[in-house]
Amino acid sequence: MTRINENFLKLQAGYLFPEIGRRRRQFQAENPDAKLISLGIGDVTQPLAPAVVAAMAKAVQEMGKAETFHGYDDGGTGYDFLRQAIIEGDFASRGVELDMDEIFVSDGAKCDTGNMQEIFSLDNTIAVTDPVYPVYVDTNVMAGRTGPAADKGRYEGIVYMPCNAENNFVPAIPEEKADMIYLCYPNNPTGAVATKAKLADWVEYAKANNAIILFDAAYEAFITDPDIPHSIYEIDGAKEVAIEFRSFSKTAGFTGVRCGYSVVPKQLKAYTAAGEAIDVNRIWARRHCTKFNGVSYVTQAGAAAVYSEQGREQIMQTIKIYLDNAAKICKSLKALGYEVYGGVNAPYIWLKTPDGVTSWDFFDLLLNKANIVGTPGSGFGSAGEGYFRLTAFGSPQQVDEAMERFAKL
Amino acid sequence: MTRINENFLKLQAGYLFPEIGRRRRQFQAENPDAKLISLGIGDVTQPLAPAVVAAMAKAVQEMGKAETFHGYDDGGTGYDFLRQAIIEGDFASRGVELDMDEIFVSDGAKCDTGNMQEIFSLDNTIAVTDPVYPVYVDTNVMAGRTGPAADKGRYEGIVYMPCNAENNFVPAIPEEKADMIYLCYPNNPTGAVATKAKLADWVEYAKANNAIILFDAAYEAFITDPDIPHSIYEIDGAKEVAIEFRSFSKTAGFTGVRCGYSVVPKQLKAYTAAGEAIDVNRIWARRHCTKFNGVSYVTQAGAAAVYSEQGREQIMQTIKIYLDNAAKICKSLKALGYEVYGGVNAPYIWLKTPDGVTSWDFFDLLLNKANIVGTPGSGFGSAGEGYFRLTAFGSPQQVDEAMERFAKL
Repeated sequence: MTRINENFLKLQAGYLFPEIGRRRRQFQAENPDAKLISLGIGDVTQPLAPAVVAAMAKAVQEMGKAETFHGYDDGGTGYDFLRQAIIEGDFASRGVELDMDEIFVSDGAKCDTGNMQEIFSLDNTIAVTDPVYPVYVDTNVMAGRTGPAADKGRYEGIVYMPCNAENNFVPAIPEEKADMIYLCYPNNPTGAVATKAKLADWVEYAKANNAIILFDAAYEAFITDPDIPHSIYEIDGAKEVAIEFRSFSKTAGFTGVRCGYSVVPKQLKAYTAAGEAIDVNRIWARRHCTKFNGVSYVTQAGAAAVYSEQGREQIMQTIKIYLDNAAKICKSLKALGYEVYGGVNAPYIWLKTPDGVTSWDFFDLLLNKANIVGTPGSGFGSAGEGYFRLTAFGSPQQVDEAMERFAKL
Repeated sequence: MTRINENFLKLQAGYLFPEIGRRRRQFQAENPDAKLISLGIGDVTQPLAPAVVAAMAKAVQEMGKAETFHGYDDGGTGYDFLRQAIIEGDFASRGVELDMDEIFVSDGAKCDTGNMQEIFSLDNTIAVTDPVYPVYVDTNVMAGRTGPAADKGRYEGIVYMPCNAENNFVPAIPEEKADMIYLCYPNNPTGAVATKAKLADWVEYAKANNAIILFDAAYEAFITDPDIPHSIYEIDGAKEVAIEFRSFSKTAGFTGVRCGYSVVPKQLKAYTAAGEAIDVNRIWARRHCTKFNGVSYVTQAGAAAVYSEQGREQIMQTIKIYLDNAAKICKSLKALGYEVYGGVNAPYIWLKTPDGVTSWDFFDLLLNKANIVGTPGSGFGSAGEGYFRLTAFGSPQQVDEAMERFAKL
């Protein structure tokens, strides 16, 4: 008799975004004339940069000719041309040296942040911020690294680190011992950023505990403050304790193109029960090349174009549109009396729901009265209850219109 | 202290194909003038069909304009236009009815066959053929569904079903009870096919044992014999016991484009320890939309073009090239006195190594003396020792040249 993995049955309700999609579609079906504005799912709206389009168009034509056709990406870890561009553009430029075989190109940070836990023992204790991107939690629940959901929907066995206005949405180092710590800065959903000093505290904690930091830097391109680190490897010693996740989704509008990468430094070790140190890079390489078969050549050609001079300029123009949106949303909502966080160095705005209404009630109110789709804070964890996430990924016109609707609410 | 998943340490050597790549690169470095012919890795050589190129080129341009830009594929299970084309082109045309939400578009069958085991309990016993595509075995080892490697490199706890000339490379139903049975027809690596009667036996076995068949049909496009089923769902009752994996890699030359899909019928159940029946489709949907974020719009547009009249015609021309290669290889090697299997209804030729030399010795001999790269049969399991796999994916000129070199060996 085939037994199901019962850990899946511990999961609370549906994954957040499909549930939002369901309510949105239901509303639209019942109100076909309503002009919805989505500031909900973190999906981008601006088109791909012309340099990216040109590179992908060229790659498509290459795939149509035998002499320039590309089959499997040998090894599946990414073409040298892309990994070299990544090393130079994202790291060497910030004083971080990495080798080619420390970069694993993938189809996105969601997959990587979800899959990385597989190479670690089920005995490890994970720590996550609360609120948190649900993928970190759900994938550990599926693997069996937690107990069932208990109080406030929190899973037994996970160390939750509350983030709130008091700690500026950057949590204190927990008193409990954790082995795998998920951090995301600039943060999804709160838009908070971490200073070098704060990240240095985490690196020190990880070293002291032989713990590993799983650092999600998917939104680093939105950092404009020169003092905020883009990579955890800007912190001394971080290569010994941290894996970093990157994505082209928000950097270059690749949500519908699918490309990201993970950095697994060769210095990083994890341990057997007997205490033997094992190279994490080697184990991830084995996982990656056994369960994954590389990213489309066309996609990788497009990703590499992001690092060209033209490409870089063009994506920065798009990011400026989103950052301007974020600033506009923050300013408008503050003027309306909302308590607002994030939205600087980050594409997310985290607002306190007015009059203590719940996050999902505010979602329904906003959907019904203003025809705006946002994301309920409670969907990111119990500490997110009473908060609401707006994204800056709409078009400027949509954002203007949304702010007008907010004013009338 | 972060503990490694020690199941990874049970894995034998490297994954097969990187090891072949390593030996090949080393030989080429030492013999820079040698003109290698690869009949090894199952990678295609013919370019994408013009209809596919046109569809992808159009999709790339759409991604460059705000009005036609595509972000996340909502839900990540594939655009309706592709799933509809799949349902009509691959199933309705053979009398198999499927619903849209039974199709999960992915970045390839390797990922799907590797990931599917996650949703089942670690307590299940898996059965695989020997020889077998290594991904089925390795991913179960990583998950912890096996003991360590023992005799002949076989993992404890797996039911191995030997395939040899005597059983025509289609194994007998095992006497042991198995819960998850991996089958692949047309077979990689042996090129064997399964008749409807044989698959019906398996469906019956699965029903009798409440077992699930994981059916890899990645090579179905190579079937020319009208009596050989393309889908396991052509067998009555198979929807209650089987998941099917499909790929555009070999069908349409997508090894470097990355697209495939899984079929998880809504009738399929797996069970809790308490005996409750759980819908497998719902659990896979949760896994898919939590750990995966959909396939590139450009790729999906290309995949849909495979089902257009022009696209279908063009990919059949390419498949004919490969099938002609296979026929040529079989004929030439038989004339030279080799014992040869497969190569009909399949792109793989499975030959017995001459004079009882081992598979890896034959690999090295072929590489050194004929500068041909093949795949050692023992890389697919201990029953593959003394066999060797050649693929039909070279160009016709390469195949001619390779056969001349074989003749001189």
